[in-house]
Amino acid sequence: MNYAVILAGGVGSRFWPFSRELEPKQFMRLIGEESLLQSTFKRLKGIVTPKNTFIITNDIYFYELLNQIKGYGIPEGNIILEPEGKNTAPAIGLCAKLISKLDKNATLIVLPADHYIKGLFNFKRAIKNAIEAARNDLLVTIGIKPNKPSTAYGYIKIKSKVKSQKSKVYSVEKFLEKPGLDKAKKYLKDKSFFWNSGMFIWKADIFLGEVKKYLPDLFKRLDSIKSVNDIKKIWPKIKSISVDYGIMEHSKKIALIPANFYWTDLGSWDALAEILPKDKKGNITNSDTLNVDSQGVCVFSRGNRLVSTIGVNNMVIADTPDALLVCDRNRTQDVKQLVERLKTLKRKEHQVHLTERRPWGSFTVLQEGPGFKIKLIELAPKKRLSLQRHKNRAEHWVVVSGMAKTTRAGKVSFVRSNESVYIPKGRKHRLENPLRIPLKIVEVQTGAYLEEDDIERFEDDFKR
Amino acid sequence: MNYAVILAGGVGSRFWPFSRELEPKQFMRLIGEESLLQSTFKRLKGIVTPKNTFIITNDIYFYELLNQIKGYGIPEGNIILEPEGKNTAPAIGLCAKLISKLDKNATLIVLPADHYIKGLFNFKRAIKNAIEAARNDLLVTIGIKPNKPSTAYGYIKIKSKVKSQKSKVYSVEKFLEKPGLDKAKKYLKDKSFFWNSGMFIWKADIFLGEVKKYLPDLFKRLDSIKSVNDIKKIWPKIKSISVDYGIMEHSKKIALIPANFYWTDLGSWDALAEILPKDKKGNITNSDTLNVDSQGVCVFSRGNRLVSTIGVNNMVIADTPDALLVCDRNRTQDVKQLVERLKTLKRKEHQVHLTERRPWGSFTVLQEGPGFKIKLIELAPKKRLSLQRHKNRAEHWVVVSGMAKTTRAGKVSFVRSNESVYIPKGRKHRLENPLRIPLKIVEVQTGAYLEEDDIERFEDDFKR
Repeated sequence: MNYAVILAGGVGSRFWPFSRELEPKQFMRLIGEESLLQSTFKRLKGIVTPKNTFIITNDIYFYELLNQIKGYGIPEGNIILEPEGKNTAPAIGLCAKLISKLDKNATLIVLPADHYIKGLFNFKRAIKNAIEAARNDLLVTIGIKPNKPSTAYGYIKIKSKVKSQKSKVYSVEKFLEKPGLDKAKKYLKDKSFFWNSGMFIWKADIFLGEVKKYLPDLFKRLDSIKSVNDIKKIWPKIKSISVDYGIMEHSKKIALIPANFYWTDLGSWDALAEILPKDKKGNITNSDTLNVDSQGVCVFSRGNRLVSTIGVNNMVIADTPDALLVCDRNRTQDVKQLVERLKTLKRKEHQVHLTERRPWGSFTVLQEGPGFKIKLIELAPKKRLSLQRHKNRAEHWVVVSGMAKTTRAGKVSFVRSNESVYIPKGRKHRLENPLRIPLKIVEVQTGAYLEEDDIERFEDDFKR
Repeated sequence: MNYAVILAGGVGSRFWPFSRELEPKQFMRLIGEESLLQSTFKRLKGIVTPKNTFIITNDIYFYELLNQIKGYGIPEGNIILEPEGKNTAPAIGLCAKLISKLDKNATLIVLPADHYIKGLFNFKRAIKNAIEAARNDLLVTIGIKPNKPSTAYGYIKIKSKVKSQKSKVYSVEKFLEKPGLDKAKKYLKDKSFFWNSGMFIWKADIFLGEVKKYLPDLFKRLDSIKSVNDIKKIWPKIKSISVDYGIMEHSKKIALIPANFYWTDLGSWDALAEILPKDKKGNITNSDTLNVDSQGVCVFSRGNRLVSTIGVNNMVIADTPDALLVCDRNRTQDVKQLVERLKTLKRKEHQVHLTERRPWGSFTVLQEGPGFKIKLIELAPKKRLSLQRHKNRAEHWVVVSGMAKTTRAGKVSFVRSNESVYIPKGRKHRLENPLRIPLKIVEVQTGAYLEEDDIERFEDDFKR
């Protein structure tokens, strides 16, 4: 049977300020109506069933992931949570381990959750060919024919066609790290070089055999994981290592199938700009933009502000309510550095958006001032916040859309649109959306201390 | 006696998005704690008394102007309101007319409200010399020695020193329009060329004599203005014309006094950038900014967002809550064009800020959604809104700072910080700040129609 292993643990910090630590790239709708993650598992339709689709991610993303898979038929139990990121070898190894327990003959299709692919038919054909080759005990990687001298990708050099295979399958001479521009130009001319896409197809047991051989310590630790409950205990002891570095560079069983479709890992704003429709002057916008004599300007906005430019060339402008980035298009790889600086400076713009997601919905801080804070709270249908109490703040709630069920000091009442309630300091309370439509309330907090950590939870649907 | 005539009717649209039609440049605190207007009349201390300081502006700016002159001792009656802008000749003519009625021997110091001057001592000396020359019936203009080949200013070519004068006073050969770069370079080398600063000193009656001679139609119309009440009627018939074009280019009485101080008309973002302190890489910021490998970037922010740049050169970034401008520093003159486009597109970003000023204070729309609108209202000490009623909306007020006096259906109550009141649709109500500290309230409006024009006013302190 075929199984998908979708690697959804990254942050994609080069897409800051759109991506944040708590809202990573794979969950973003960068192109079209689906998130990159949703596109990833939808792309496998007809090859892997939703029941056989596994997603491995960081445990802080659990509730967001639940939202993302809603309606796609993927069982909640197929979400595998890492307590912390350990790079690809442990993640894939863990999934291989858990899946091979369910199905000894499982074939895994390992896909990063945050790539972009165009040409679905050819993608599926390549995957099918890869499955066929994997059944002959090969570790198959999908190679991308370079169309430019990219320095952002690792390369794979092929040796020769594997004769035993029906479709085009090549043996691999070596894996090469991201090259400088000169080398990249040489690779581009040489037909034996491919980009390393990070898409792998192999049998679970063959892969685990190679882990045993080349990463024996990892194998031993994975072997001690008898059920998902053991992960938390074992994981901290596992060393971070990529599957490329740990397995692919050593294994003798590697084969490459050339991709016949458009692929990008969407590694940066500029990579995204490459695939989006442009106007006559090469400008891109997803929002309210006015360009005067500008060329190659890419405006991405999550606010609803007007973005205007005059005489600007080859620039990415990424606009969010709490952070703006203006970046030369040749420097979009360096956004990662900027994010590192934000971390060092102990800021918060790299962590969360002004609109913060919660398992029950989201809230946006509209304004803060001395002694007050104004929030717009959106509560998803049928969800409720914890039963809670604040030491230092009182809250005024005005329902502006939907209906709220409130519990105050044990008393339940229903608050309709255009009605308000008051929660004094120290009063136990709970907010709930009893309807099937979203609930919106404006919360005005008053008090001397208004931080999120002034909360005492008595009951919570999300085990917080 | 000396009188100041401060021309405060412009918009300064090249400072968009900071300047807006209803919040023009002269009222902005671009440099330091005072607005450009306030600096303008403070600069005259010791030369003109506040009682002799007149300000002419557009009547839509009346309440803002009242705020601006508060505490400076300038009588409210010295604000002269134009129903519409007619350029400088009519504005100065009108002031000359009204002031000469008060004082036949008045000497006028005519100053634009939105320029920047450094070197107060030399400024005052120049003005005093100019007054002396003006008392000999000359129309004196202050000329600025060019320090670069500017194409943004008009030029004045001098002829020779006027012998009868003690200080350096020159007769003028001609006025020249803004030149191209080649001409400007020639002018820079030739010591007989000066920038036209738009600062003029002359006796009111001498000036009116020249108006009679060179702009007889304007003179006739001004003559029919017997009191400020006549302005509204006469003004629409007056033709727009600048004092340079209408008088200075023709009069035989022109004299020039060279300025010995730093002057700029702050014609654009780049002109502002020139005078502000820079870091080692020539970057300027007034706000929360993170520059990586950027040079000559000028960040001006009115929001409280992080502005970050990577590899950006010589760019102005002007950030406000509802509009962002990214503009090549060599193109800042073209901001005016952009504003024209906004007008053509019937947008509102050129008219008002998200925080809108009112005679009683200001309000900010924090969020709008279907059926609701959230505002933060700031009411100045001792001010009150009109007694009013809304057909289509209910309002929830939560006081977050200060104390409110509310009148609802004739009943007065005092609402303290952290208390709230509700105003149902159709109820007559009034909001007042009874204290000497500002009052802040959060207003949540609900209803199907939430525009500003849903207001029926019964009493208003501001004659609206």
